[in-house]
Amino acid sequence: MTQPRRFDLSRLLRPRSIAVIGGKPAAEVIRQSRRMGFAGEIWPVHPQHDMVEGLPAFRSVADLPDAPDAVFLGINRHATVEITAALAARGAGGAICYASGFSEVGAEGADLQAGLVAAAGAMPVLGPNCYGVINYLDGALLWPDQHGGQRVERGVALVTQSSNIAINLTMQRRGMPIAYVATLGNQAVAGLGEMVEAFLDDPRVTAIGLHIEGLADPAALARAAARARRQGVPILALKTGRSPEGARLTLSHTASLAGADAVMDAFLQRIGVVRVASLPVLLEALKLLHVVGPLPGRDIASMSCSGGEAALIADAVLGTGLRFRPLDAAQTARVATTVSALVTVSNPFDYHTFIWANAPAMTETFSAMMAAEFDLTLLVLDLPRGDRCSDTAWLPSLEALVAAAHRTGRKGALVASLPEALPEDRAEALVAAGVVPLLGIDDALAAIAVAAAVGDVLRDAGRPNPAPAVPLRPGAVRTLSEWDGKRRLAGHGVPVPDGRLARSPDEAVAAAEAIGFPVVLKATGAALAHKTELGAVRLNLADAVAVRQAAEALAGLGEALLVERMVGDAVAELIVGIGRDPQIGLHLVLGSGGTLVELVGDTRILLLPAARAEIAAAIGALKVAKLIAGHRGRPSGDLDAAVDAVLAIQDFALAQADWLAELDVNPLMIQPSGAVAADVLLRLVEDPDDR
Amino acid sequence: MTQPRRFDLSRLLRPRSIAVIGGKPAAEVIRQSRRMGFAGEIWPVHPQHDMVEGLPAFRSVADLPDAPDAVFLGINRHATVEITAALAARGAGGAICYASGFSEVGAEGADLQAGLVAAAGAMPVLGPNCYGVINYLDGALLWPDQHGGQRVERGVALVTQSSNIAINLTMQRRGMPIAYVATLGNQAVAGLGEMVEAFLDDPRVTAIGLHIEGLADPAALARAAARARRQGVPILALKTGRSPEGARLTLSHTASLAGADAVMDAFLQRIGVVRVASLPVLLEALKLLHVVGPLPGRDIASMSCSGGEAALIADAVLGTGLRFRPLDAAQTARVATTVSALVTVSNPFDYHTFIWANAPAMTETFSAMMAAEFDLTLLVLDLPRGDRCSDTAWLPSLEALVAAAHRTGRKGALVASLPEALPEDRAEALVAAGVVPLLGIDDALAAIAVAAAVGDVLRDAGRPNPAPAVPLRPGAVRTLSEWDGKRRLAGHGVPVPDGRLARSPDEAVAAAEAIGFPVVLKATGAALAHKTELGAVRLNLADAVAVRQAAEALAGLGEALLVERMVGDAVAELIVGIGRDPQIGLHLVLGSGGTLVELVGDTRILLLPAARAEIAAAIGALKVAKLIAGHRGRPSGDLDAAVDAVLAIQDFALAQADWLAELDVNPLMIQPSGAVAADVLLRLVEDPDDR
Repeated sequence: MTQPRRFDLSRLLRPRSIAVIGGKPAAEVIRQSRRMGFAGEIWPVHPQHDMVEGLPAFRSVADLPDAPDAVFLGINRHATVEITAALAARGAGGAICYASGFSEVGAEGADLQAGLVAAAGAMPVLGPNCYGVINYLDGALLWPDQHGGQRVERGVALVTQSSNIAINLTMQRRGMPIAYVATLGNQAVAGLGEMVEAFLDDPRVTAIGLHIEGLADPAALARAAARARRQGVPILALKTGRSPEGARLTLSHTASLAGADAVMDAFLQRIGVVRVASLPVLLEALKLLHVVGPLPGRDIASMSCSGGEAALIADAVLGTGLRFRPLDAAQTARVATTVSALVTVSNPFDYHTFIWANAPAMTETFSAMMAAEFDLTLLVLDLPRGDRCSDTAWLPSLEALVAAAHRTGRKGALVASLPEALPEDRAEALVAAGVVPLLGIDDALAAIAVAAAVGDVLRDAGRPNPAPAVPLRPGAVRTLSEWDGKRRLAGHGVPVPDGRLARSPDEAVAAAEAIGFPVVLKATGAALAHKTELGAVRLNLADAVAVRQAAEALAGLGEALLVERMVGDAVAELIVGIGRDPQIGLHLVLGSGGTLVELVGDTRILLLPAARAEIAAAIGALKVAKLIAGHRGRPSGDLDAAVDAVLAIQDFALAQADWLAELDVNPLMIQPSGAVAADVLLRLVEDPDDR
Repeated sequence: MTQPRRFDLSRLLRPRSIAVIGGKPAAEVIRQSRRMGFAGEIWPVHPQHDMVEGLPAFRSVADLPDAPDAVFLGINRHATVEITAALAARGAGGAICYASGFSEVGAEGADLQAGLVAAAGAMPVLGPNCYGVINYLDGALLWPDQHGGQRVERGVALVTQSSNIAINLTMQRRGMPIAYVATLGNQAVAGLGEMVEAFLDDPRVTAIGLHIEGLADPAALARAAARARRQGVPILALKTGRSPEGARLTLSHTASLAGADAVMDAFLQRIGVVRVASLPVLLEALKLLHVVGPLPGRDIASMSCSGGEAALIADAVLGTGLRFRPLDAAQTARVATTVSALVTVSNPFDYHTFIWANAPAMTETFSAMMAAEFDLTLLVLDLPRGDRCSDTAWLPSLEALVAAAHRTGRKGALVASLPEALPEDRAEALVAAGVVPLLGIDDALAAIAVAAAVGDVLRDAGRPNPAPAVPLRPGAVRTLSEWDGKRRLAGHGVPVPDGRLARSPDEAVAAAEAIGFPVVLKATGAALAHKTELGAVRLNLADAVAVRQAAEALAGLGEALLVERMVGDAVAELIVGIGRDPQIGLHLVLGSGGTLVELVGDTRILLLPAARAEIAAAIGALKVAKLIAGHRGRPSGDLDAAVDAVLAIQDFALAQADWLAELDVNPLMIQPSGAVAADVLLRLVEDPDDR
């Protein structure tokens, strides 16, 4: 947990001195930093020129007056490696490698990248193949191109692997103050985890937004996220790669139902990084968190002077997890005293236009609504376009919203139904006044739900991070027979049906008589993964005759016959799998079992180790939860026993972390009293010691 | 089908003369119409003033030089009724009643509204309680307030009940040309259907957007929609009211699973009005339809100079129904000749920045992609903000997109990842060039899916409209016993199990022996709606002893015992219900049956009469479709027989349309050969003749 970060990017991100080396991109760094009022030293390095952009140039790194805090390397890839070594030797605080042609272009580049890593040594380097970092707090623009931002005193920090998306984000016109924009490129040296830590070092950063394509070092991000939770700094992520990964075929249902993206989802959820689905929602949610902070809950109110907008937002809230909590009688009465008797008080609230343009009257109404203590109170209002209309009559509404928020001490938002209906200057004024401007009803509600999820994360800030990924040992992977698999699991406390192995119909009958009827007969063997489809399972055999007949019919299908007590009273079936992601590590896959799992594909993923409450909540979110609760007069299932069984399966998986290739309990039968693993598929790396 | 519309709004919407009556709002009509260059006559009517807004005023309606085509009534509600009568007598083309205080305020207003309807007679009136109509084609602004639009030669028509939302829509900055904006208010006289017909009379209208809160006359909208399909004019609707309607409790599952909004959904789908989920998507989809028309399919391509944007849009397409069709080998080779060897050709396509700002090179690349004949080809690109940056280097990309679209004759779109990243003037230029600008990746894809759905509608333009709603006859509603219900359905060809009614255990045994074992025994009677929960059903009785035992146990539970042949070989279960919506009429509710229906709530609604293919498609979209197709080696179900049974149920419902309060077949058992209604709940209005 307290493992130190590998690189400290503080000097690079917040430099007192910047050295720039190279031609046009380096000159742009000088121009932009000076335009933004950077107060530190800027030292151009140029082998021929005496002056660069009006500043005296130094011939080489060795000639610099001091070790620079930050260096922008706008030179070719070979020179980049060479000068990185010189900078590391000189004690520079870090460098940005703009050049491309490293590992992203194949083998030759990979060699060069290895050279860069060696040259950097302990000095942090961003890139190669990246634009760099913009620090709008101090005006340090280690950035070779146009951008759309401006100086701020505090704001959100953004990091992306895509320089193009970084540029686009700086062009936002949403009133969101941007503190930092950083691009990572190839992450040869320093990566996402170190960048987030460097943001966390700066108290002027109010929230952090990540755009992630691939995650190079999940453990480093998990460490940074744990620190962010402790500091109360929200982290949001737009992670791409949800589209199907192509064929990763295995024998098991688990792998076929849960794609890698679902594992990433579970990972981000576990470390408290709240995932968002689009760039606009990322920006709206960051802005919301910047202005009003995480939300304590999901009860919101909406106010508008039109029933049309009230109906729009009432519909739009469906499926977001947010709730328009009704006002109680006293709250209703209080709001009613502020409006015409013709107005019906409700939530969403259409307060009509009787008080339009009357700021004192609206302040009373808005204050009365806000006094009902919602987690966030919205005013839905579109401003007219300033080039063709006047917004004079609209401004009292904004004024009243700000006044009501201040008077009541509650959190307020202005929501424009069309994103273009809130001009940037009005948005900036609202941000300054502590009311968050949100653009577009759907994006606004998505952002509010994100801010509530951040609230959840921060209330549970101390939870442990997931176990880091353990590599699978080398060796051939072997599928165990059902019998062997069940013995292994039973050894870790997983309940399995009373059963015996039989090699002949006679042995099967004897086994059945010992166990007690009715029994199940299964052909078993490492090669029989999908027994049901093969007809290799006979259920509900009530007597010796039936057992003998079934045993004769199954003869030759597998290596042996497994005779088990029939589990006849299952209330519901779960599928419980263990998946392993090479980066993220081991995870539980919990799903609705039986025919349902095939028809609805209903699963939840939890990273290991999962807590008892997490497992119970995940099962409770499955479709079968209704069956477990006792459906239509049927008996309820033993949820505690099911959770115990899952915990035992998890214990087994953690103990076998480096041997376990695949584990699938399908079904785990949940009975009125107890739960039992009715079938098991287990694949392990061959153990030379056959332990 | 060819029923004439009740009112023709043509003169009101496209007037050659406008009379305005009243104070400030009426003066605004004059100002706005003159500012917009209205070429016709404007006649103020004022009892005292000689001049209004610089125009000579007439003392009364009688003094007008001619019958005005359009009249704006900006006067109080009582005067509104009075002058409406005078206008109707004078032969005016129509009037807008701005005044409020009619039926929206209760009984007193309702009387006044009845007076208004009487006064109007055959003259169309919009409102009362509405802003009016803006005609941006001819500059006729029957509109009492600010607006954000401008004159256009052709464009989309918008209609809403909410004047506030109408104003907001005019403020859009998306490059969408607006032809008309109309508000409906109370719809006392003319309503939505007539407005749509009036839009359809104007060939300058390219697409129609509806914002609907409540639907007063579904049949009128259905007639207008049928005409729109014939004319090939797309209609989209944002219908609010998806949030739960509160308690409308019935005995039947059908009503509990299908809310009224789902019926509205089925209605709009049936009449070919494509529903959208938000205002931004409404606008983006209308603009797309205006510029490039309906899409023939859902295969799209995306191009961007960054992998980050390619990954964003690849993810965003999930769940939209759209597809990034891969290029074939020849198409790939052709695109590859236009780009660096370092670029990998794919869809979505990251063409890198090697050809950045090089319009001829990009034109080659974009043309090669477009030549692969996608239904729409997108360029994902954000423009920089003009106030802080130059967009000069971005313009060659737009130029190349337009050139490639023209060269290949294919449809093209520019998609900005942030909605603010495409300035209005650039958007307008693209519209003029025939390439559609779309704001925000998610809204863009939603709009594209809508345009493809419009393509589906127009390919099936000739389909019949649903049967209009028939009111239920007055009288008490009676629940039939299962036996009586099944006899009624069987009379219309619905297959039911072979069964007999028995009054005693002896009769039950005799019936079972006549039917053949195994049998089912049920207590039956009008009061027994949920037999399973009551324990009033005994399944799979294999012999006379079992039947006798069961009959004795069930004695006294109902009025009689129903003995039926056990349906033992069901592959899947459906729930088939008939719902009735007072406005929309009768509809089929098809759902996954058995335990599934409870756990996943999986239903489809079809309006009556539904065609065979529609029913088959609806069943095919249910979760149980996998079971019917033969799941995991199990036998497949007889889909044809199931569809036959649903058609027979529909026949019964149509024949009983005015008597049928509720019908629920649950389950309809689908067998390997055949289908059978295993349980029936039927509620009918009491027939005095007991027919």
